[in-house]
Amino acid sequence: MANHNFKSFVCIAVLLCNSPSQIVFFRRHGVTRNSSIPRELRQQIRAGVIQGQTSGMAPGFVQANLAILPKDWADDFLAFCHVNPKSCPVIGMTKPGDPYLPMLGEDLDLRSDLPGYYVWENGERVQETTDISSLWRDDLVGFAIGCSFSFEHALMDAGIKLRHIEEGRNVAIFRSNIACTPGGRFQGSMVVSMRSMTPADAIRAIQICTRFPNVHGAPVHFGDPAAIGIADLNKPDYGDVVEVRPGEVPVFWACGVTPQAVLQTSKPPFCITHAPGSMLITDLRISEISLF
Amino acid sequence: MANHNFKSFVCIAVLLCNSPSQIVFFRRHGVTRNSSIPRELRQQIRAGVIQGQTSGMAPGFVQANLAILPKDWADDFLAFCHVNPKSCPVIGMTKPGDPYLPMLGEDLDLRSDLPGYYVWENGERVQETTDISSLWRDDLVGFAIGCSFSFEHALMDAGIKLRHIEEGRNVAIFRSNIACTPGGRFQGSMVVSMRSMTPADAIRAIQICTRFPNVHGAPVHFGDPAAIGIADLNKPDYGDVVEVRPGEVPVFWACGVTPQAVLQTSKPPFCITHAPGSMLITDLRISEISLF
Repeated sequence: MANHNFKSFVCIAVLLCNSPSQIVFFRRHGVTRNSSIPRELRQQIRAGVIQGQTSGMAPGFVQANLAILPKDWADDFLAFCHVNPKSCPVIGMTKPGDPYLPMLGEDLDLRSDLPGYYVWENGERVQETTDISSLWRDDLVGFAIGCSFSFEHALMDAGIKLRHIEEGRNVAIFRSNIACTPGGRFQGSMVVSMRSMTPADAIRAIQICTRFPNVHGAPVHFGDPAAIGIADLNKPDYGDVVEVRPGEVPVFWACGVTPQAVLQTSKPPFCITHAPGSMLITDLRISEISLF
Repeated sequence: MANHNFKSFVCIAVLLCNSPSQIVFFRRHGVTRNSSIPRELRQQIRAGVIQGQTSGMAPGFVQANLAILPKDWADDFLAFCHVNPKSCPVIGMTKPGDPYLPMLGEDLDLRSDLPGYYVWENGERVQETTDISSLWRDDLVGFAIGCSFSFEHALMDAGIKLRHIEEGRNVAIFRSNIACTPGGRFQGSMVVSMRSMTPADAIRAIQICTRFPNVHGAPVHFGDPAAIGIADLNKPDYGDVVEVRPGEVPVFWACGVTPQAVLQTSKPPFCITHAPGSMLITDLRISEISLF
């Protein structure tokens, strides 16, 4: 059944292709390119001038998680993403061996344009690096997966304060007990990011994020962390601690770290991901991927 | 300032008029009339065959709260509604002395087509009746105000269970400490309705209700009742007690009882409202007032 769904999905995706080198899934796939900011940032990252986190960079532009897998595992991974669109919204995918994603950015090279990469073998992290050109192979397929950094700009634009950004921290990220739908050889639990806010802001955030299904969309939970298997908000599995103040509730979004956790569980012999917080900055404007 | 806004508002509203006898504020004001269900229900109510609550009647059709005021107070009331659109969304308004609202329903007579009315003098309830024909005056202006009964159908259609409906009760309604914006001679606090649900259902409910701003739209609060001045969920100010079970949160919507509470506070010498739960059933389909 999963395999059948996957074939239909690829078929539809191919029909949507604008370029033979990639697949994109936007309503508006003939996107406008009228800003040089993301390209310039990528060039500085490529040159090693910019290192570390990309949080807050290129406000208003979509940032993406990265997963790179050999072709024989990439099909399964796409099947997994297809049935888990909240945590793994695929916004771009390369052909095997092609490291470029022109529909997500001019001269965008997945081998060098992220500030940090993790290299994995059999589910174990074996290397952290700032360039994967020497590791590139003809069978590798790159996936760009929507990232919550994208909708944070829309939230702040609406006057919603995000504590981790105000305090210069990473968002708090937790492994939940929400089971992902298995797809191909991949299965595991959803990883969630947490932002704390008042209920009124949370309602507004749900409205705003609903407009952006390609970057995780609406939250999956708010309130009691234990209800989704999180024992202690002060012990995030990734990222930093974010305080929940009196009158606030923790609000949880499906997180693009999910694929990374699932790769660790499902143990493909080789794969590459972005390093946490070191995202792919695309030329896509947030407003271009808004549903309404 | 309020008066200035009010004049602009009336001006715009008059421009939107399809009929000289009313003002309606819908995006689609040339609505389709292809069901006789609401009209038949109104006729049975008018004949006294149907009495009491209208909850669950004519699923999929908009129900409305009613407020009737003398012309010299009606202008202030419209100004108040204008600045409090979440609690007081005006979906129809008569000309002075005209008891009909054809844009909300064929042969719709505000004097007889609701199962119950409250009559008020100087903020005190002086009479409860099923027909106000004998009380009608040439200076009375009728307001139909969106009601949450309308969006409940959309919630249930999405698989969200509403406990008060399953248990055959009225929704729980509370006076909150959320201040309404003063308008004209009217001021007071927002009245809210409460439905309990899981956080996941609450997130979906926020999405669904966002589509219906004319019937209160998205909730205004969830979680801690004390944060909006509600001391005890087991002591609603109107309606029935609704249980909040483990794993659920109370979710609060702006409620069309707000105008009734405000009328009690602001004490116009004479006014008429619907009796709680005895709403005006309109010919408008919920889908016709959906934003998207």
